Amino acid sequence: MLSENEIEFRVRYQETDAQGRVHHANYVTYFEMGRTELLRSQGLSYRELEEAGFFLVVAGIEIQYHSGAQYDDLLRLVTRTVKVKGATVQHEYEIYCEQELVVRGYSRLGCVDKNGRVQRLPELLRASR
Amino acid sequence: MLSENEIEFRVRYQETDAQGRVHHANYVTYFEMGRTELLRSQGLSYRELEEAGFFLVVAGIEIQYHSGAQYDDLLRLVTRTVKVKGATVQHEYEIYCEQELVVRGYSRLGCVDKNGRVQRLPELLRASR
Amino acid sequence: MLSENEIEFRVRYQETDAQGRVHHANYVTYFEMGRTELLRSQGLSYRELEEAGFFLVVAGIEIQYHSGAQYDDLLRLVTRTVKVKGATVQHEYEIYCEQELVVRGYSRLGCVDKNGRVQRLPELLRASR
Amino acid sequence: MLSENEIEFRVRYQETDAQGRVHHANYVTYFEMGRTELLRSQGLSYRELEEAGFFLVVAGIEIQYHSGAQYDDLLRLVTRTVKVKGATVQHEYEIYCEQELVVRGYSRLGCVDKNGRVQRLPELLRASR
Repeated sequence: MLSENEIEFRVRYQETDAQGRVHHANYVTYFEMGRTELLRSQGLSYRELEEAGFFLVVAGIEIQYHSGAQYDDLLRLVTRTVKVKGATVQHEYEIYCEQELVVRGYSRLGCVDKNGRVQRLPELLRASR
Repeated sequence: MLSENEIEFRVRYQETDAQGRVHHANYVTYFEMGRTELLRSQGLSYRELEEAGFFLVVAGIEIQYHSGAQYDDLLRLVTRTVKVKGATVQHEYEIYCEQELVVRGYSRLGCVDKNGRVQRLPELLRASR
Repeated sequence: MLSENEIEFRVRYQETDAQGRVHHANYVTYFEMGRTELLRSQGLSYRELEEAGFFLVVAGIEIQYHSGAQYDDLLRLVTRTVKVKGATVQHEYEIYCEQELVVRGYSRLGCVDKNGRVQRLPELLRASR
Repeated sequence: MLSENEIEFRVRYQETDAQGRVHHANYVTYFEMGRTELLRSQGLSYRELEEAGFFLVVAGIEIQYHSGAQYDDLLRLVTRTVKVKGATVQHEYEIYCEQELVVRGYSRLGCVDKNGRVQRLPELLRASR
């Protein structure tokens, strides 16, 4: 199974701020899009995971900002699963505008049931690395 | 009961866009804050309404933009209930920066149950006009 | 030139709210994406328009909500130029999830220069209808 | 001068997601509000800093999520300046709902001029620790 995926998307005007660049909070949302599409490329659907009672909650985020992106820039996001263990999955992200690195990020997600109790990741997801 | 309420809040940097003004979508979110606080001023809590099984869903929004607001502007939002009937409630909104009108808006909300079926507004809310 | 364009995109998790549907403010952002891509399909770039000193500011928005969209729904947005006159351009929007109409919207935009003074729309844009 | 500040604010409905909690990207925006108000409590205005040609750009963000916040929760955000040196300022953030820690975060900001060139933080800001 794939443990890396790449998507491209354009910066929306709404995502910019008065400095004329993408507001730094939006990269967290971009990362989430990357995870959704990484799962899909593995034949999984996060929506179906939730419907099956597996909820991924974000436990930690880290972002290093290297340059700024502007409205209408075509960004390329590389999402990688770097660790899957028990109830936890870690991802790494890189966002590029053309050849330039814009941000690098990391996330740690935990798997819980609908009552918020920690549960092991579903088999399919653990096998996806 | 009060059918009008006023709140003040500051524009967040994240709410601006590359034109240096509040992005026009954010006024929809401001209106929602106004409704929450109008209800609270009437002794009601929208959170408790939902917990009691009454969900308000937005059926229509209209906004006229008169001027722009900037980061850190202190905005004043006046929210008014203009009609309450059956399962529907209509509000009117005005946002000012100092004495200048920034936007005027209107919304129409319908009351549904947790399955999305239309239901009459709770008695308290109908009486609130 | 084309006066209508269609795009498809997926609902992001961040765009949902506690009712489990797309928060109603996000449709305003979707409309903006539609305008950007309508222009691009006409051989124009809104980013280049701004660089050339033509800024489009939103003067009015109207939205009718017909149904709700969920996380990961694949939405189809039809954007139409309905009127171009002097310094003003009007668009109409329809968003569908499969065959179901989710929202219909309208916007009125005015063209200003970098100092916020009204100016006629650039020739190319007026010819685009 | 104060190097710590505390603000209170309510969770907006728009800030929640389909899991019924504040979407994790919004904490980045909350931190920014904290910085704005920390500066204001020191007699400074970030808006005036920008008007004077000092732009703070975010170089790094780290967030640890401890619990979730819901719509209408009254959150308390403590913002602390932890290091000011040359062109860089570091902050620490804690967000509480009643006595419970919701998130803890860190940011590193760099000071640039309007052309994006690194410049020393203004004297007032360096003295603010």
